[in-house]
Amino acid sequence: MKFCPQCGQPLALKVPTGDHLPRHVCTACELVHYQNPKIVVGCVPEHEGRILLCRRAIEPRHGFWTIPAGFMENDETMQQGAARESWEEAYARVEIGSMLAVVTVLHAQQVHVMFRARLAEPTWGAGAESLEVALYDPADIPWTDLAFASVRFALERYLEDRAAGRDGLHFTAIDRRLPAAPLAGVPG
Amino acid sequence: MKFCPQCGQPLALKVPTGDHLPRHVCTACELVHYQNPKIVVGCVPEHEGRILLCRRAIEPRHGFWTIPAGFMENDETMQQGAARESWEEAYARVEIGSMLAVVTVLHAQQVHVMFRARLAEPTWGAGAESLEVALYDPADIPWTDLAFASVRFALERYLEDRAAGRDGLHFTAIDRRLPAAPLAGVPG
Repeated sequence: MKFCPQCGQPLALKVPTGDHLPRHVCTACELVHYQNPKIVVGCVPEHEGRILLCRRAIEPRHGFWTIPAGFMENDETMQQGAARESWEEAYARVEIGSMLAVVTVLHAQQVHVMFRARLAEPTWGAGAESLEVALYDPADIPWTDLAFASVRFALERYLEDRAAGRDGLHFTAIDRRLPAAPLAGVPG
Repeated sequence: MKFCPQCGQPLALKVPTGDHLPRHVCTACELVHYQNPKIVVGCVPEHEGRILLCRRAIEPRHGFWTIPAGFMENDETMQQGAARESWEEAYARVEIGSMLAVVTVLHAQQVHVMFRARLAEPTWGAGAESLEVALYDPADIPWTDLAFASVRFALERYLEDRAAGRDGLHFTAIDRRLPAAPLAGVPG
């Protein structure tokens, strides 16, 4: 961020009065432009015991496997966003269930929020951002070809909870240098 | 948003190839600038059965009561942000508990995420953004002087769950024209 989105003049980094962090402040109109984490919403869609995964047709992580997920839009709830992404990436109509995982991805300034889900109809297909879409038995999930650590975390917690017959909500923080580790597990 | 934060040239609203919504696109460098909801994190701090509330010293809703809450920063988890806001607004050290409520505030392009909390020490005071901070018996909560509908939703669900002996996670969407109503309640 180099120029003021409001007036087009150069920005400078400084700590505004009463604040505690450096912000992008306009050198002309003095507006402060805060930068905050973006929300990524996704879900783990299950159908007859198998999990729907998408192989990415776009960067980052082209060719690797993910659950349906993407940036939350302004005009929707998290659940609506997760269902929209399932449709866009996998032509899958899903019923969104309980919240499964909240993963703070510190290096990307993102918060990934994943829900449990079920296919509302037994149909799916590759959307524009997917090379292929498939249902996986848990034993066959391509763990070494997953796109993101947050996807691994969500799938691991999903399968653990399913085996234990509970619906937990799980939190973790990830940065690029560290593996995912649970901060707090709250079994339902 | 009128000018490109990357190069300072004017933006135009158009639907990028492969997208489905109009975005701010730079007329010079062609960068697409997405706008997404911001996360507000907060908590309901309890101490000996009473709830800590802050009377706002800033706009919007100057003079009205709120729970400690504010914009999540890039370098923290939701729980860390909620604890930070409790310190900044109420000089209260809190232990953050389970997630209580997720309120999509559609007219403000925000998602408010509230947690249960307990005071770690029996001390509090008015931070720079508060006129006063006080502990309220549930029967004395100033319902007609609350700052935001999301605060009312969080407090109502908190007290209902406490009375029922459960830790639920509650979702709702609010816009300025409509009262808050539960979309889905998931008792813990």
